[in-house]
Amino acid sequence: MEVPELRRDAVSGRWVIIATDRAARPTDFIKPKDVPQDRDRCPFCAGREHETPPEILALRPAGGGANTPGWEVRVVPNKYPALRIEGNLGIVGGPLFEHMDGVGAHEVIIETPEHDTHLGLLPTPHVEKVLWAYRERYLDLDRDPRFRYALLFRNHGRSAGASLAHPHSQLIALPVLPRRAEEELEVARAYFAEHARCLYCDVLEAELEAGQRIVYENEGFVAYEPYASRFPFETWIVPRRHTASFGDLPDEDLPDAADALGQTLYRLHAVLDNPPYNFILHTAPYDPIPGHFYHWHIEIMPRLTQVAGFEWGTGFYINVTPPEEAARFLRAIEPGPRVALTGAPEELHGEVGGR
Amino acid sequence: MEVPELRRDAVSGRWVIIATDRAARPTDFIKPKDVPQDRDRCPFCAGREHETPPEILALRPAGGGANTPGWEVRVVPNKYPALRIEGNLGIVGGPLFEHMDGVGAHEVIIETPEHDTHLGLLPTPHVEKVLWAYRERYLDLDRDPRFRYALLFRNHGRSAGASLAHPHSQLIALPVLPRRAEEELEVARAYFAEHARCLYCDVLEAELEAGQRIVYENEGFVAYEPYASRFPFETWIVPRRHTASFGDLPDEDLPDAADALGQTLYRLHAVLDNPPYNFILHTAPYDPIPGHFYHWHIEIMPRLTQVAGFEWGTGFYINVTPPEEAARFLRAIEPGPRVALTGAPEELHGEVGGR
Repeated sequence: MEVPELRRDAVSGRWVIIATDRAARPTDFIKPKDVPQDRDRCPFCAGREHETPPEILALRPAGGGANTPGWEVRVVPNKYPALRIEGNLGIVGGPLFEHMDGVGAHEVIIETPEHDTHLGLLPTPHVEKVLWAYRERYLDLDRDPRFRYALLFRNHGRSAGASLAHPHSQLIALPVLPRRAEEELEVARAYFAEHARCLYCDVLEAELEAGQRIVYENEGFVAYEPYASRFPFETWIVPRRHTASFGDLPDEDLPDAADALGQTLYRLHAVLDNPPYNFILHTAPYDPIPGHFYHWHIEIMPRLTQVAGFEWGTGFYINVTPPEEAARFLRAIEPGPRVALTGAPEELHGEVGGR
Repeated sequence: MEVPELRRDAVSGRWVIIATDRAARPTDFIKPKDVPQDRDRCPFCAGREHETPPEILALRPAGGGANTPGWEVRVVPNKYPALRIEGNLGIVGGPLFEHMDGVGAHEVIIETPEHDTHLGLLPTPHVEKVLWAYRERYLDLDRDPRFRYALLFRNHGRSAGASLAHPHSQLIALPVLPRRAEEELEVARAYFAEHARCLYCDVLEAELEAGQRIVYENEGFVAYEPYASRFPFETWIVPRRHTASFGDLPDEDLPDAADALGQTLYRLHAVLDNPPYNFILHTAPYDPIPGHFYHWHIEIMPRLTQVAGFEWGTGFYINVTPPEEAARFLRAIEPGPRVALTGAPEELHGEVGGR
């Protein structure tokens, strides 16, 4: 079992994981592998806990042993991890061919034992449990001094890269800073240096004042279509409280965070008929990189068009739906039963399955 | 007919074209529009010249009137342009909501009158004509002082964003510098400042010495899998001659450029069974931005996996095929009839249809 390699591209500075263990051959792409999508074979469904690696964290309000049914949210290592815990952190290979061992963690957050649902349809208290699990795992990986950044993301739908239909998110801890995270930090740092204010706080204030791109808001969070949306119906969820790191999300903000995320995903589901999407949680790097001027948030990117050909290579986007239009459609959706806010369920704090 | 808007994202610095004229509504994404893929209705086929806007450039070795059959390569304005020639270049809206009119050009290079072929299957002398047309249009748009950058790209296959099957490329001239182009320039500038050498020349030399990622080479060009390839079978074509701008590609290098591009696309076709792909021509910006330290090249990105969910938002990639493996498969393909190099065909220089 070979360790995957992290390679740095000399002409762009970006890092790439080159998976050596599960290397794909041309025929793998010509005939895509069959992956189990149905509930009869799904390894994430309750009752098939032995088909995943042993769990790292699980929420079992009624108790029960690790790796048995009865969980509400369950975190396991990825069975085919892009990175591994073992390896050497040294950068070798000279300036043009820099690389290091693919050291890192790759976990899967199974969001519910139910197969045929998703975050946008689950009740708010359940979404809160998912966010709680995100934060627990995010903080736990922060204890490993080798990790500089954690990527929390969710692929929904096959064309957004979800290889399993069962609702789940992923967490990747990295020994390097992704290029786009670095770029965002630079812009926020420069803005803070000039204005002594947080760029994201200022944008949020300006968006609230403009109003026309707001999708949903509650006391703690605002969902809006960013002014320069790259994709139709791109939606960001931003905490009102200035918090650089997602790890610092306080317990009392969890219900509002869950409400805003659930409401937003539900509205996208309703307007666009359950679209494929990716969401990425953007957060400050783990210490010791200073990042107090940053502001964590979630960026949801529906995958509605195939037109994103050249966008990939250029960082330049053509968006066929003005964000003001998209916001108008999303605002018009009735909140429905999702809107009921609940306090943090008591079982959230403590009832954690075996590691 | 409203002018599209160019908006700058305050937190990343990227520019986005917001198309206002052809704004898409939710239902457009739920039921994708039917676009003509068959030769019976194709507006790019010979005999349907009146279905495109009037041509800007055409190669007619046997003569003939503009917008009539008899052409080998034909350039027309995009019927649904992302940018328009008219508009105001001033940036307005303050630091958080910067925007300007979507001023620019958007052209389509129809590469052949034949419907059912592609650049990887056409004879080398024909590919040369296509590259010649690229360069002519690139240089002509450089005369407009409002344009700072030109994007030449090709989407092949529906899942790579090609809305029409007929072989064609696109050229977009922009009044701003795309974020990734700016980033590449910064890295190349820093390397030049430190080493007084071109970064791309040094990488090319190192790749030739390593040998294991080389796909194809001739006297003027080298095709290789970059060391930190983002995608399986990502392939770059780099001129040996240090040339910052594609516009400076000399006539005598056209045959080698065509041979390298044709050979590479043919090999991808043969190994991966005609895969969808995007290619992007990376070049120095139009004056007056200094870019002598840059080195133009073509980046081909096969679209083989749907796994690129979070890559989009992070600039961090997981590649399941080591570039050394990909190069081995691509090198093994017999050159076939494509390999014959020809001198620049005489009709290339002068026989240009009406503007």
